[in-house]
Amino acid sequence: MQRVISIIENSQAAYLATVDSQGKPEIRALLNLPNPKKYKHLAGKALKQEGDTLIMYFTTNTSSQKVARIRNNSNVALYFCEPKLFQGICASGTMEEITDAALKDSLWQRGWTMYYPKGKTDPDYTILKFTSTKLEGWYDFGPHIFGGEA
Amino acid sequence: MQRVISIIENSQAAYLATVDSQGKPEIRALLNLPNPKKYKHLAGKALKQEGDTLIMYFTTNTSSQKVARIRNNSNVALYFCEPKLFQGICASGTMEEITDAALKDSLWQRGWTMYYPKGKTDPDYTILKFTSTKLEGWYDFGPHIFGGEA
Repeated sequence: MQRVISIIENSQAAYLATVDSQGKPEIRALLNLPNPKKYKHLAGKALKQEGDTLIMYFTTNTSSQKVARIRNNSNVALYFCEPKLFQGICASGTMEEITDAALKDSLWQRGWTMYYPKGKTDPDYTILKFTSTKLEGWYDFGPHIFGGEA
Repeated sequence: MQRVISIIENSQAAYLATVDSQGKPEIRALLNLPNPKKYKHLAGKALKQEGDTLIMYFTTNTSSQKVARIRNNSNVALYFCEPKLFQGICASGTMEEITDAALKDSLWQRGWTMYYPKGKTDPDYTILKFTSTKLEGWYDFGPHIFGGEA
């Protein structure tokens, strides 16, 4: 699991796949809050390990299409990668919107007024919580799987 | 469209989202055959533009889970990116298996015996054909959309 977490933490971005009501997928790039080099104030907050499960937090605009898609189907996949090293992690699981103001507050970063002009109480500021059900990794010349679907 | 094609051609890998029968997405990395720096013999073959539609070819193992998923639901999304430049393309569309031996032959690369030991007639050698229905790009400080769904 240490290698899985290390690849996640080193990924430049997080790639999120969501599915619409017609079963069509879409991929969007998210700020990779679990990367402590990019978000040093979020180290230990944006990524948490509970056994074989990873909890991760991301931010997006409430008005974005991906929020609408997640409300309709909370099953998502996230991909993290080091393309030049041929390393990648696919984390499958569910994504939920966080409405808890204290948690949203604790994850707020000063520069984000660029995305949410009204600050941490901007109604367009959404925090998404991801809970993994399966983690698949490609590194060290082979696949590695943690967890599994019911 | 030239910028969209340029970002696709410069992407280190292609990230493919497929959906299973339960509506759960999964992401896998594919060799980015449309990258002419990596696959110079495939330049002009692995990516073709027809108006606002892009046709792209990829390769994978017939026995892979993604082939099973595509047979069940041919709707897919592909993501191409330059993470450090905050550029990305999401190409939505459909993926189909190619059984035409002449086409499979024309895309075969010598080094691929690493993946398909029996060569271009290896039953595990699959060529996938992607046809876009929508292209969404993030570059030059904004979103750009080509095509659109019915």
